[in-house]
Amino acid sequence: MQKELKVAQIGHKFIGKAHAYAYSNAGFFFDLPVRLRKKVLCGIGDDLGKIAEQWGFEESTQDWKEAVQDQEVDIVDICAPSKIHKEIALEAAKQGKHIFCEKPLAMNMEDVREMLAAVEQAGVVHTVGFNYRKVPALAFARQLIQEGRLGTIYHFRGLYSQDWLTNPQFPLAWRLRKEAAGGGSSWDLGAHVVDLSRYLVGEIEEVVGQQTTFVKKRPVAKYEDGLTAIAGEELGEVDVDDASSFLSRFEGGAVGLFEVTRYGTGHRNQNQIEIYGSEGGVIWRGFEKMNELEYYRTKDPATSQRYRTVQIGEADHPYVSAYWPAGHIIGFGDTFTHEIVDFVKAIVNNIKASPSFEDGLKTQAILTAVDLSVAERRWVSISEI
Amino acid sequence: MQKELKVAQIGHKFIGKAHAYAYSNAGFFFDLPVRLRKKVLCGIGDDLGKIAEQWGFEESTQDWKEAVQDQEVDIVDICAPSKIHKEIALEAAKQGKHIFCEKPLAMNMEDVREMLAAVEQAGVVHTVGFNYRKVPALAFARQLIQEGRLGTIYHFRGLYSQDWLTNPQFPLAWRLRKEAAGGGSSWDLGAHVVDLSRYLVGEIEEVVGQQTTFVKKRPVAKYEDGLTAIAGEELGEVDVDDASSFLSRFEGGAVGLFEVTRYGTGHRNQNQIEIYGSEGGVIWRGFEKMNELEYYRTKDPATSQRYRTVQIGEADHPYVSAYWPAGHIIGFGDTFTHEIVDFVKAIVNNIKASPSFEDGLKTQAILTAVDLSVAERRWVSISEI
Amino acid sequence: MQKELKVAQIGHKFIGKAHAYAYSNAGFFFDLPVRLRKKVLCGIGDDLGKIAEQWGFEESTQDWKEAVQDQEVDIVDICAPSKIHKEIALEAAKQGKHIFCEKPLAMNMEDVREMLAAVEQAGVVHTVGFNYRKVPALAFARQLIQEGRLGTIYHFRGLYSQDWLTNPQFPLAWRLRKEAAGGGSSWDLGAHVVDLSRYLVGEIEEVVGQQTTFVKKRPVAKYEDGLTAIAGEELGEVDVDDASSFLSRFEGGAVGLFEVTRYGTGHRNQNQIEIYGSEGGVIWRGFEKMNELEYYRTKDPATSQRYRTVQIGEADHPYVSAYWPAGHIIGFGDTFTHEIVDFVKAIVNNIKASPSFEDGLKTQAILTAVDLSVAERRWVSISEI
Amino acid sequence: MQKELKVAQIGHKFIGKAHAYAYSNAGFFFDLPVRLRKKVLCGIGDDLGKIAEQWGFEESTQDWKEAVQDQEVDIVDICAPSKIHKEIALEAAKQGKHIFCEKPLAMNMEDVREMLAAVEQAGVVHTVGFNYRKVPALAFARQLIQEGRLGTIYHFRGLYSQDWLTNPQFPLAWRLRKEAAGGGSSWDLGAHVVDLSRYLVGEIEEVVGQQTTFVKKRPVAKYEDGLTAIAGEELGEVDVDDASSFLSRFEGGAVGLFEVTRYGTGHRNQNQIEIYGSEGGVIWRGFEKMNELEYYRTKDPATSQRYRTVQIGEADHPYVSAYWPAGHIIGFGDTFTHEIVDFVKAIVNNIKASPSFEDGLKTQAILTAVDLSVAERRWVSISEI
Repeated sequence: MQKELKVAQIGHKFIGKAHAYAYSNAGFFFDLPVRLRKKVLCGIGDDLGKIAEQWGFEESTQDWKEAVQDQEVDIVDICAPSKIHKEIALEAAKQGKHIFCEKPLAMNMEDVREMLAAVEQAGVVHTVGFNYRKVPALAFARQLIQEGRLGTIYHFRGLYSQDWLTNPQFPLAWRLRKEAAGGGSSWDLGAHVVDLSRYLVGEIEEVVGQQTTFVKKRPVAKYEDGLTAIAGEELGEVDVDDASSFLSRFEGGAVGLFEVTRYGTGHRNQNQIEIYGSEGGVIWRGFEKMNELEYYRTKDPATSQRYRTVQIGEADHPYVSAYWPAGHIIGFGDTFTHEIVDFVKAIVNNIKASPSFEDGLKTQAILTAVDLSVAERRWVSISEI
Repeated sequence: MQKELKVAQIGHKFIGKAHAYAYSNAGFFFDLPVRLRKKVLCGIGDDLGKIAEQWGFEESTQDWKEAVQDQEVDIVDICAPSKIHKEIALEAAKQGKHIFCEKPLAMNMEDVREMLAAVEQAGVVHTVGFNYRKVPALAFARQLIQEGRLGTIYHFRGLYSQDWLTNPQFPLAWRLRKEAAGGGSSWDLGAHVVDLSRYLVGEIEEVVGQQTTFVKKRPVAKYEDGLTAIAGEELGEVDVDDASSFLSRFEGGAVGLFEVTRYGTGHRNQNQIEIYGSEGGVIWRGFEKMNELEYYRTKDPATSQRYRTVQIGEADHPYVSAYWPAGHIIGFGDTFTHEIVDFVKAIVNNIKASPSFEDGLKTQAILTAVDLSVAERRWVSISEI
Repeated sequence: MQKELKVAQIGHKFIGKAHAYAYSNAGFFFDLPVRLRKKVLCGIGDDLGKIAEQWGFEESTQDWKEAVQDQEVDIVDICAPSKIHKEIALEAAKQGKHIFCEKPLAMNMEDVREMLAAVEQAGVVHTVGFNYRKVPALAFARQLIQEGRLGTIYHFRGLYSQDWLTNPQFPLAWRLRKEAAGGGSSWDLGAHVVDLSRYLVGEIEEVVGQQTTFVKKRPVAKYEDGLTAIAGEELGEVDVDDASSFLSRFEGGAVGLFEVTRYGTGHRNQNQIEIYGSEGGVIWRGFEKMNELEYYRTKDPATSQRYRTVQIGEADHPYVSAYWPAGHIIGFGDTFTHEIVDFVKAIVNNIKASPSFEDGLKTQAILTAVDLSVAERRWVSISEI
Repeated sequence: MQKELKVAQIGHKFIGKAHAYAYSNAGFFFDLPVRLRKKVLCGIGDDLGKIAEQWGFEESTQDWKEAVQDQEVDIVDICAPSKIHKEIALEAAKQGKHIFCEKPLAMNMEDVREMLAAVEQAGVVHTVGFNYRKVPALAFARQLIQEGRLGTIYHFRGLYSQDWLTNPQFPLAWRLRKEAAGGGSSWDLGAHVVDLSRYLVGEIEEVVGQQTTFVKKRPVAKYEDGLTAIAGEELGEVDVDDASSFLSRFEGGAVGLFEVTRYGTGHRNQNQIEIYGSEGGVIWRGFEKMNELEYYRTKDPATSQRYRTVQIGEADHPYVSAYWPAGHIIGFGDTFTHEIVDFVKAIVNNIKASPSFEDGLKTQAILTAVDLSVAERRWVSISEI
């Protein structure tokens, strides 16, 4: 008889939906060594029960402790607001549950260190929601780099552009208040780009940055849901950054150029990654073109060199052979499926998951260094943090 | 208590997997008026039971009649080989089941007419698997056309290019034998393009075509699975077309240019649709770029006119608001979800589904006219068929 | 002392300007064995003298016979209206001048045959203005094909889309009257695509086509210049085709798909050429992207296959090393420079130019076959013409 | 009788050729109020006379003073090595000649200040070779910004990537030695991007940067010409930067992100400019796509918003109406023609040219601030320079 892993998921908004989708589809597409059961969905709001049913959870509860302490539960999946990540994770570790926690792990370095210590002490498997690693095109980029097919890496560029704040009349949503969001564009978008840079190129040594709040006062929101919000009449202050840019140096000698912004007019969700090496280069253009990787080889004949837009979907590309024949793309939600697949395999094989809370900590250290660099207007070494 | 619809699905290969995915996810993303239950999966092979379990079916059987005659079953979903579509559909109609049948409905006009007569007489809801209609970008293109935003339509171009036969050593797979496949590229790929042209532009009046078999003999396959096959030593004859092109005239005066091929080197699955009208144009570039629609307005100022690549994902685009915020794409499998959603709504509201078997018949008539045109080397009017 | 070739150019409108540009720049960029002198510009209109001076001609005249009979003149360059091509060419041949004649050579097959006979009898070097052959990207495509790097050719597609007639209120310009233009889109645009198909793939054996005039009556023009025109109040009849499509079969077994239109909404001047072979494919997207050639190799590893957009400009690409370092493009006018360079070399070496009047004749035969096919609604063999 | 301006051009390599091309073609395409005469070409080397003849100069000389002091000469055009710009410019100013000087004006701020003082005192018209301003797409971008069509500007990104140093075995060409080149990528490529940022967005207030030399030792060149060079056996030290990145703040509150590199693998000459504002955005992708401008309007309806790739060539776009109908592109050389056209108009109308030596000075100040920032690892205000 096949073993099961039972899941308690805390959070049922945008990212919660993606997690639930992943638990539904991981076993459908991939041959998992265990069966996943969506045991309980935890959240707040009148529609919780309806959503739990629609998403295929067996139960629902408004009390996260009850869910985490449930003896039957094997996995605690945390996609609740960042402010309560730590408290849930500590309890889950105490209960011996494996933990999947969304990014950012917590609001500051101390909390993250505490969380990492707790999961290590408990001996549970832990992972953090850097789902870009699970985009097949980016996993393939890493293969190319690991196999030396780009040679020595010179440049990393990560430019993440959203545009939902372009209009100065857009309301002061919760993401624009430090108290609720913990940080601005740097923490929200920058976390993904920094993790990717580590995944693809290696460790960062030092940074210097600049952060800007272009529109300092915005109408307070009368109503908000996800990235949708309706402006009220009063004005309130934006106390997080709208955009954050920084320069970095990697251990291997490569240089990094980072910019994340919510004012990248016309780009709903573009995350452009460029990596240039002595034997090749790759460019990825974000979730809207997530199944494409542009690839250049210096060894092609000069008359027919140039970037080719590889459509990820061939049998030997990571993850995708579980889906459809070449030429039939997968979507955003499927990257969460890959997170679950890898997490489940780590649990079953009792190995460290990738990315782990340690990766979460390292990324948080870099973002903290950027903040310090901005505050003190100087280069900051990651080792200072 | 919520009503249920129970499904018997016949077929568990590539397209069967897409159907099963759709039954799993339709209720997850969309607020359906009924609950869908995957009652029974029917297929042939030792792994049927395992697949049924992995896909979430309650039962499995190798006997399609048993599945179709099951009193509890409400929907019969036919994604078995085309040769047995008719027999299954007739039995399902007799049993009063609603029917979702993959394209092509059958191997010739007589069979399709018989199937249409049967479902109409039985009064069941029927739909055919032209899933391109359910691509949000194409559904949006139809909206633009229906609202007159392209003006009078002048041109339709549909160029469907796959490249799995480019290599003359690729084996003689079942799709290359008329007895098994019913037809070649024209029937396989052409059906989608022709249905789309009807969906977007209207009825075709007459056609003239050309069909070619570039490589007449190929190694017989020792092994095959989907589009993968391994060559044996003997040679066998290809008796279907490798590529098919035709010109057409639409009722409204527009002209059509069609080409489908399995020799479109470098294109795994490109299906380029171009529509040009007096007030605008749209271009769609196939499943690899399924979330994009290029759109041109003649009324933009001359200095800033040109095609913009609209990323389908805004709240007011068809289907997509059920998924993620703008900038996070969906995949190939989701078009099947939309088929199921629309089919279920038609059942619940007891209305005609779109596309119906009648659409299947009309497309088959056009493809039959193309075949006749090729055989007799002349223009053929659809009314002759 | 360096030898000179003295040019008499008949015609000073759009294409005349391109020819004059070419005579100015051929010797600037390329090491020509002779010096080119712009001796005389012939045309009609008050501004002729001013234009001749601006373009660097030594003299001007309104009498083309005077220019052609000038004893000092070596080259007669005919970019006058098509109706008078024949008369000028016959006189030039009689005078022993080398001839560069714009396309179409003449209004019908008989006239073209007469012109070809005349230049052959006179023993002069002759060329026709199919300047697409001189686009470096297309000359490079031909190299790839000749070297076998695309393998056996299966498909040729040539889709030429302009959009200046999209608006039904655009006036009845001279290009829309058969008496003045000789033909419609087929003759004007189709000539280029047909010549390219011969240059790249080989001879065409038979064709079947369709031609349409979408807007049958248009306002008579009060004023017109080039593609600009101002509508008057009266309506007049369009008696040429707006769009022309045809299917073809090449000698080597490849199939051809052609469409030319002046109703390709949003495309000012797109001429998309696609060629698919057993070992590779190339795509070229017209003058707006004239320095790019998309190229695919079947021999690349499956995980990194796909079209790369080769930027033509490397040292070993045809023509371009005469200009700038890689990464700095050339423009439309420069294709005329290449025509002149090749023509001058043919004159100096006393060899046949490419393309010659014979090429002009062959293209005209194919377009004539298309016309016949449309008139008689049947396949027409080129050998019938 | 028409007035003439006679030109003495100092320099006959890559950029010299572009200048000569421009003097040949400015009057051909544009209605200039005066006639341009290529009086004398000055350079070093045995082939000078041949080149002067090929380019249409009346005379040649190896002695630049002779050329500059020629009483008939009106314009001195300096495209000689940067080291001697100052000396020539001072002499030309003394002689009362109008001056077109290539960038960088000189090797340091003092020299540039001296040059500016000299031309202002002499009352001659002066311009500097920032030819990107003369790319029609970028001149059009400036129009859009000036007309407020992008609203308040938030972001400027300028990423200039060449790839000729990607290979560590490429020789130590003169551009890699400070003594010969004055600086590395920052001075060579950065000058263009910085000038563009001022032209499009406005003045920069402060910067912080990073510069890297990835490959510190390279084979000394046995032979070099332009960007081509052949490696010898000895190694020599690279003493300029290979890549330079910096962050900036503009006066109006916009932020800037700059990176220039000679290690941008696969990019021969990509110069990507992105500008994001409250009402729109524009993206330009460098000389390889110089006739395209991607443009986004926030006011388009949400369902059909996105960047459109405007093909520059419409009648109302800057410069291009002098050439061909829409859809027929111009090339790199033509941007130099526009420089000459604007310079000649400034001379004739006795107004300040754009860009002037003052623009040259301001750009040099910013690049000097970047150098200082790198040396002292801190933010530097431009006002410090």
